[in-house]
Amino acid sequence: MHRIAVVGASGYTGVELLRLLSRHPDVQLVCVTSRQYAGQKVTDVFPSLQGNLELTFTDVDPEVLAQQADLVFTAVPHQTAMGMIPQLLDAGCRVVDLSADFRIKDVSVYEDWYQPHTAAELLAEAVYGLPELYRDQVPAARLVANPGCYPTSIALALAPLLEQELIDPTTIIVDSKSGTSGAGRAAKVDTLYCEVNEGFKAYGLPRHRHTPEIEQTLTALANGAVTISFTPHLLPVNRGILSTCYASTRRATTLDTVHEVYVTRYANEPFVRVLPKGALPNLAQVKGSNFCDIGLVVDDRTGRVVVVSTIDNLVKGAAGQAVQNMNLMLGFKENAGLQMPPIFP
Amino acid sequence: MHRIAVVGASGYTGVELLRLLSRHPDVQLVCVTSRQYAGQKVTDVFPSLQGNLELTFTDVDPEVLAQQADLVFTAVPHQTAMGMIPQLLDAGCRVVDLSADFRIKDVSVYEDWYQPHTAAELLAEAVYGLPELYRDQVPAARLVANPGCYPTSIALALAPLLEQELIDPTTIIVDSKSGTSGAGRAAKVDTLYCEVNEGFKAYGLPRHRHTPEIEQTLTALANGAVTISFTPHLLPVNRGILSTCYASTRRATTLDTVHEVYVTRYANEPFVRVLPKGALPNLAQVKGSNFCDIGLVVDDRTGRVVVVSTIDNLVKGAAGQAVQNMNLMLGFKENAGLQMPPIFP
Amino acid sequence: MHRIAVVGASGYTGVELLRLLSRHPDVQLVCVTSRQYAGQKVTDVFPSLQGNLELTFTDVDPEVLAQQADLVFTAVPHQTAMGMIPQLLDAGCRVVDLSADFRIKDVSVYEDWYQPHTAAELLAEAVYGLPELYRDQVPAARLVANPGCYPTSIALALAPLLEQELIDPTTIIVDSKSGTSGAGRAAKVDTLYCEVNEGFKAYGLPRHRHTPEIEQTLTALANGAVTISFTPHLLPVNRGILSTCYASTRRATTLDTVHEVYVTRYANEPFVRVLPKGALPNLAQVKGSNFCDIGLVVDDRTGRVVVVSTIDNLVKGAAGQAVQNMNLMLGFKENAGLQMPPIFP
Amino acid sequence: MHRIAVVGASGYTGVELLRLLSRHPDVQLVCVTSRQYAGQKVTDVFPSLQGNLELTFTDVDPEVLAQQADLVFTAVPHQTAMGMIPQLLDAGCRVVDLSADFRIKDVSVYEDWYQPHTAAELLAEAVYGLPELYRDQVPAARLVANPGCYPTSIALALAPLLEQELIDPTTIIVDSKSGTSGAGRAAKVDTLYCEVNEGFKAYGLPRHRHTPEIEQTLTALANGAVTISFTPHLLPVNRGILSTCYASTRRATTLDTVHEVYVTRYANEPFVRVLPKGALPNLAQVKGSNFCDIGLVVDDRTGRVVVVSTIDNLVKGAAGQAVQNMNLMLGFKENAGLQMPPIFP
Repeated sequence: MHRIAVVGASGYTGVELLRLLSRHPDVQLVCVTSRQYAGQKVTDVFPSLQGNLELTFTDVDPEVLAQQADLVFTAVPHQTAMGMIPQLLDAGCRVVDLSADFRIKDVSVYEDWYQPHTAAELLAEAVYGLPELYRDQVPAARLVANPGCYPTSIALALAPLLEQELIDPTTIIVDSKSGTSGAGRAAKVDTLYCEVNEGFKAYGLPRHRHTPEIEQTLTALANGAVTISFTPHLLPVNRGILSTCYASTRRATTLDTVHEVYVTRYANEPFVRVLPKGALPNLAQVKGSNFCDIGLVVDDRTGRVVVVSTIDNLVKGAAGQAVQNMNLMLGFKENAGLQMPPIFP
Repeated sequence: MHRIAVVGASGYTGVELLRLLSRHPDVQLVCVTSRQYAGQKVTDVFPSLQGNLELTFTDVDPEVLAQQADLVFTAVPHQTAMGMIPQLLDAGCRVVDLSADFRIKDVSVYEDWYQPHTAAELLAEAVYGLPELYRDQVPAARLVANPGCYPTSIALALAPLLEQELIDPTTIIVDSKSGTSGAGRAAKVDTLYCEVNEGFKAYGLPRHRHTPEIEQTLTALANGAVTISFTPHLLPVNRGILSTCYASTRRATTLDTVHEVYVTRYANEPFVRVLPKGALPNLAQVKGSNFCDIGLVVDDRTGRVVVVSTIDNLVKGAAGQAVQNMNLMLGFKENAGLQMPPIFP
Repeated sequence: MHRIAVVGASGYTGVELLRLLSRHPDVQLVCVTSRQYAGQKVTDVFPSLQGNLELTFTDVDPEVLAQQADLVFTAVPHQTAMGMIPQLLDAGCRVVDLSADFRIKDVSVYEDWYQPHTAAELLAEAVYGLPELYRDQVPAARLVANPGCYPTSIALALAPLLEQELIDPTTIIVDSKSGTSGAGRAAKVDTLYCEVNEGFKAYGLPRHRHTPEIEQTLTALANGAVTISFTPHLLPVNRGILSTCYASTRRATTLDTVHEVYVTRYANEPFVRVLPKGALPNLAQVKGSNFCDIGLVVDDRTGRVVVVSTIDNLVKGAAGQAVQNMNLMLGFKENAGLQMPPIFP
Repeated sequence: MHRIAVVGASGYTGVELLRLLSRHPDVQLVCVTSRQYAGQKVTDVFPSLQGNLELTFTDVDPEVLAQQADLVFTAVPHQTAMGMIPQLLDAGCRVVDLSADFRIKDVSVYEDWYQPHTAAELLAEAVYGLPELYRDQVPAARLVANPGCYPTSIALALAPLLEQELIDPTTIIVDSKSGTSGAGRAAKVDTLYCEVNEGFKAYGLPRHRHTPEIEQTLTALANGAVTISFTPHLLPVNRGILSTCYASTRRATTLDTVHEVYVTRYANEPFVRVLPKGALPNLAQVKGSNFCDIGLVVDDRTGRVVVVSTIDNLVKGAAGQAVQNMNLMLGFKENAGLQMPPIFP
């Protein structure tokens, strides 16, 4: 039984990690930290876990963590993560980092979109933990950079088209919509119930910080620099991301052809579901699960292909993918602890 | 591996049964029926189940069902259930019936609130499947009447008070609020999104059909006829029932005393969580789980106790409790297949 | 054209006042204050008002306010209100106060449920601005205490029964449900979208601060001390309060009788709509309007009457009722500026 | 006082017309028809209107309508509209048609996307009632084709860019999101509360019927055939459309330049609000109003401009725009009856 710690478990990603890990068959959750809630029972903060988790939040101490746990999930904000991860690695822990700090390989790009990097020496070693693209690198990794929610939904949507050179990468436009849990659990007027409910808006334009992460992955797939238009929107739902991806095809094609490409590409992926031809995905069909659903449209009138993908932002977009990476790192079945179907309705 | 069938799986209770049974470690789902969808793949109707369930809806044929399955869940409307269950039992199946047809022991009461009963001879045999009250009767039962959603939330809320004779049963008032999945999946104007969203209403007053079922249980607990005021309301959420139960205490009491009664009563119940003193339950903390959460208030000013209980109406209020009953009937661990924590948020 | 100021216009009640006053035919909005937003254009904070209101938030200065405005709405928290209102009155302003500070006549009761009162000398003068009960006192008032949202919904629901002595006042139980705008616009984790959406809970038990205000009104109606059970709940909707009120009848009665009492009592009230017999109100049918809808149930089985009332908490429960009081104070038509029907859906 | 009739008032567009017309200062609503509800009081079907509208639904009879009303709104499905409008015109009525039947000038295009047209002789005469583009044609019109909801949001978003030839019309991609009231009030499983709530999906791809209507308007603006990618999505909100419109600029430009173009273009439009630079619109800020809000983004990295527009689909996208057209046809102030600010929250 491997011993696992979660650092920064007071947010929505944190509590989702606790939900998944509390029932995982192969690991034991030994330590859960939160500056804000240190000393409180986890179930006093998150009553949903009563009966499944009998731990108390502790303050963060990398030394102690390294003694207690074999693998640590860091679910803290960017910049905070880079401050503690070197110490955890030095102390012998393996780390799955859910922040943005180790996702971008080029430190100058990172610093352009975020802030100065204090642990850039680890960037080369960090593995970008999108198993569907980098599965072979994950098992041996000491540090896995768990991908962002938007980037996951977009990379899985566009990878087959770019791998098969079916689209012109200069024409990619991605219009994404995220549930509100993606905005975090900090008290802010902008995410109050009455500000979000019955509303809908685009935000962060034109420089949302997930843009360089998305472009890094697409560039690798396209074998050439890809620049995209990326527009995130805030949806009045708790969970889920739907990305609508547009691109012009390089040559005339058909839905049959494109669908076959996707079915083949993802045939052995446990968490990617290519929908039947003509079907389009719905956030409601992936809620609570680690699935990414993909629907395909080929539009003869415009010469464009439209790929629509959905994930649960807290699962495949964060905690579930982190557990998937842990499963690969520790040699478990890749879908261990991740098999419950989505909750509908 | 026991073989299981679900009859009437096209509604929300049906698809929830499929979700739970598709991952249950001890049973195999062999047959899923729906008049409306016969011949269609289950996952074409419920894409959430893609990757977890590879069955096709069939039409209902009790003869065939009895050959294929050891235990049948009937998730059809009342009156339809009583038409097929005698045949299923005769053919050797055991049945967990999720309709109201076999819940009420007194046929005249049933006929007063519903319509004529055509299988009243089975009422004496049917076991009311609320394990927290009737656990010892379930294992040997041929026919289990799975309780209604409101009655489950109310019986668990009030049982300890009545068992300990702490309240005056003539003063019970229950104000319940249910998520919209309780209204079913039939196409009706009343449950369209725009009719329910941003709305809230009481309905079915003063004679909602769950009233006699609730009174039957409370009467048994009180050793004397109990008549209650019961007001259901429709909540703009998908899942959940919260019942606020009021009663005058027989004598002055304290929160400490009442809390201790509940903690003791439910100490060994896997699915009842008595909250810490001062805490009140929230629908959001039981979503997707088989838990019933209970919060307690003693009001010195009025001499009343207020008990607030929450369940997921599709799980503890329907499909989850049905699986719990199946577990008891087939000798499995009572919480087999029901252990995932609630999904929050 | 009377000149009007709104103090504390940064919350949901404040912006609703601005919405109503910006189109009111008989007044001119001259001053809008907010400590937090002083110096910012109102429409930068509330873009919904763009094109209807060209004012800038100022800081609060009672001297200046008194020079600029004939009548001031104070939409600040309790305790803050009592700190500024004496000065405003001294300077010659008339005041409609939307806080709780001047609603409760008995200072010891106020201090028991809130905190020490620093302007108790004004309590006798302040008029409780529920026009359906105290209309004749409002026109001449210098200081109107605008009622609370829950108390408004409950007083209108129960007044006819108490006036006609149809119910036993010791048996009153009120189960209320409020939309989330009632919790205010301050940044708090508890009212974040993901904490409220798909959830539902009771709160503030057993001593919600609206209790003494409700009891004061009911006591006056009953000619004798009334103590009630009052349970507020938080609804996942933006606007609206629904109160379900239970009481035992003094003697057997019928729906016809009770309905006739309500129809007669409210025949000339512009903002109370007694629904047809058998109909029950829905929050969705009063949204954005100053109406209070009332539905009636008489239950022979239990000897209880159930009255269900709905209001928009921001309109009849706050800003709309405040404008109604202003209309009476300034001699306008009582429904001036309040005539738009509810928005449905 | 002009006499007005609404045909087909049982849907969400119909009830919104009744809401607006019931308080319009210059007209009298004399007749309201509905096949489904004929003989019922309007307020029994729509209790929100109680106290504002004392009419009874009648069956549709064009002869009678023409006698009673000077102007008729037809809020019936396409194909039904074309069956009654010729008769209404012949009888001397003026008509604002909210269906799609008279929006598309080229009958072959209409028949390609809809079905055969039985009143094509009226297409030339019908005025496309988007006042911001065709204001001068509306006053004298006998038949106004009220624009679709998506087309309104998109035409207003893109008109200034096309008029000024700032964008390459071959690169236009429009990603739209609509509230559920746009799907109508017919009982369908797809629009049940539990199917829509907490969900989000694209639909109707790649040939949603609003596409040719949008392209007709954009083609006229661009002086050359425009073909667009148009992806509608279903939002879990009651009201509102947000359209995110992408296009490549013809030459490098700046936000200052583009913003100035919009401010100038819409300077005298009562219902178009160009937001300040850097601000993006939110559905919540137009709810219940006839406003169209527009936000602008210029992205140097991609050479694209992104225009985001919001409307209330039932107001500026349907009933409000219809009233705006009526105001022009009957010589009223263009914003008569349409001046209430949006409801927030």
